[in-house]
Amino acid sequence: MNRFWSDTVRNILPYIPGEQPKDKKYIKLNTNENPYPPSPKVLEAIRQETGSILRLYPDPEASSLKETLSDFYQVRANEVFVGNGSDEILAFCFPAFFNAGDVISFPEITYSFYPVYADLFGLKCETIALNRDFTVDLSKFPENVDGILLANPNAPTGIAVGLSEIEILLQKHNDKLVIIDEAYVDFGAESAVPLIKNYENLLVVQTFSKSRSLAGLRVGFALGNKDLIEALNRVKNSFNSYTVDRIAQRAAVAAVRDKEYFTETLNRIIKTREETAKRLISLGFNVLPSKTNFLFVSHDKISGRELFSRLRHDGILVRHFDGEGIENYLRITIGTDEEMEVLVERLQNFLRNSIP
Amino acid sequence: MNRFWSDTVRNILPYIPGEQPKDKKYIKLNTNENPYPPSPKVLEAIRQETGSILRLYPDPEASSLKETLSDFYQVRANEVFVGNGSDEILAFCFPAFFNAGDVISFPEITYSFYPVYADLFGLKCETIALNRDFTVDLSKFPENVDGILLANPNAPTGIAVGLSEIEILLQKHNDKLVIIDEAYVDFGAESAVPLIKNYENLLVVQTFSKSRSLAGLRVGFALGNKDLIEALNRVKNSFNSYTVDRIAQRAAVAAVRDKEYFTETLNRIIKTREETAKRLISLGFNVLPSKTNFLFVSHDKISGRELFSRLRHDGILVRHFDGEGIENYLRITIGTDEEMEVLVERLQNFLRNSIP
Repeated sequence: MNRFWSDTVRNILPYIPGEQPKDKKYIKLNTNENPYPPSPKVLEAIRQETGSILRLYPDPEASSLKETLSDFYQVRANEVFVGNGSDEILAFCFPAFFNAGDVISFPEITYSFYPVYADLFGLKCETIALNRDFTVDLSKFPENVDGILLANPNAPTGIAVGLSEIEILLQKHNDKLVIIDEAYVDFGAESAVPLIKNYENLLVVQTFSKSRSLAGLRVGFALGNKDLIEALNRVKNSFNSYTVDRIAQRAAVAAVRDKEYFTETLNRIIKTREETAKRLISLGFNVLPSKTNFLFVSHDKISGRELFSRLRHDGILVRHFDGEGIENYLRITIGTDEEMEVLVERLQNFLRNSIP
Repeated sequence: MNRFWSDTVRNILPYIPGEQPKDKKYIKLNTNENPYPPSPKVLEAIRQETGSILRLYPDPEASSLKETLSDFYQVRANEVFVGNGSDEILAFCFPAFFNAGDVISFPEITYSFYPVYADLFGLKCETIALNRDFTVDLSKFPENVDGILLANPNAPTGIAVGLSEIEILLQKHNDKLVIIDEAYVDFGAESAVPLIKNYENLLVVQTFSKSRSLAGLRVGFALGNKDLIEALNRVKNSFNSYTVDRIAQRAAVAAVRDKEYFTETLNRIIKTREETAKRLISLGFNVLPSKTNFLFVSHDKISGRELFSRLRHDGILVRHFDGEGIENYLRITIGTDEEMEVLVERLQNFLRNSIP
């Protein structure tokens, strides 16, 4: 505590990201990174930008990236916003669309950054309970809130809701903004992007950190009708003119253009996920049905905390959350086939030695 | 206007950065970029980071960069904060140190982003008038404000105040936070960094965009006592865990380590600035004494707007501001000797043809 701290800083509990270990080499399955490198065309694009030009500011509008995304997603360029990771875009949504004191609603088990943003910008949160099977019942979102924030697929459960359910949600709450955080959508869920034409209360947020192997470069984007995008532009231009650097813009353009690499690596990850899920189930794990690049699993015989510690000790990092109702679960990122092979073997050994 | 816009977005007037033209090749003297490329060691560092590792999130703490800056500036690592450009850090200062409704004071002519930040975070502004010669009289800062924000050297005037004056300011206002924005300090002004040991109300903000030729990569940093840094960390970690990407972190480390290149390019720019100032004075320009990489100039016979238009037409971009009291001035970035030679020639021609 310090006499110069604002009330916000005194009271806030910041988000804690998964660890990025520096002490030793782990099989790193804790922050949902892609096991495959960025496309070779992305690396070549970065090399081409690595020169004297870095002395110049990037395009503050990121026009080339917006046009590339607009082509790929079949929307207009003024329906695209880009930011320094989707986390930054989610943060911008709060001052763009809500006033201090407003109420935003999201599932009680979801990306744990949402209540932190709400605190930072002075919003109140109203959470909805999940069903016993961890699915989200969209009909539970209350009428008397100012906005809805939904991760689809949800994190850390990995469970997705279908497009028809999203559409019913948008119709029912047509007077309030619905933000769909599609960080993991490419791994098998249905994207709400085709709905932005018809629903001006829909904003879809996505990221280059997962399906496009670019967590290290920080690029995210939002798609929605031009007035929503204009609000985000106004906030961004009142905060930092140049949020996405030259290399990140250039790399992101190349990533979107290399559709073949994108599809191929996605398919590999989905295949590995399904195989890993089967093997974990055969070891007695409860495995939630995932449309993401991670699995959310528990075992009736060993606590989540213990499994986490044992794996960590053995050089495998996964993520464990202390939240009520999920304290026995582990979130395991899908790595390469070889990494998942090691994971399954280790778990098999633990179970053999631990369960009488 | 849109029904989903917040009150903030409805009312705010965003900052407008200098143009980054795409229509043709200009001699670009409008956004205070460095005319020299980043150090070759920086480019090599980027190449080394350009690989599979980009699939992994960057170090959210940017520890290596903080340690490098802590070495260079002789402060502790926990007295260093890094961000996605100094603009982001200045933006973070508002929720970190002030509450909505607080009053922040800065000179009436200064970096025009300051009132925009204040609007975004609901602060009131109290500006102090400059002296007739555009110098800032620090004794004018009022007692009854919640914080002081001072660009030193000031922008767009280029005029610096000395360290002894800053120290008197810190003593007089020892109960409030004083933020010194030293974006241009390396070009010849005195930095307040040595004072952070003794004044816990001092935060110094700097950037890699000017003296370190890395505007394209977006890196800034703040130095201050550890409690101030902790407040910035809390805001950052409630906003975006990973603000500075892998390549930017790695490049910035290399930039700070290459002291020789830094000193050499700085000295060249300072030399060019002084020579250009002399030549402009000999053409009848009023040239404010600059400790930056730009000159703020006016001519009694031709308006700032006209000079701006003529230069633009002739392929030279400079910056013109409409603000009261500076509407006849141009802000001209120091380019290479060759670029300044072209600038001076063009101005000489205009004057010859325009003044009867």
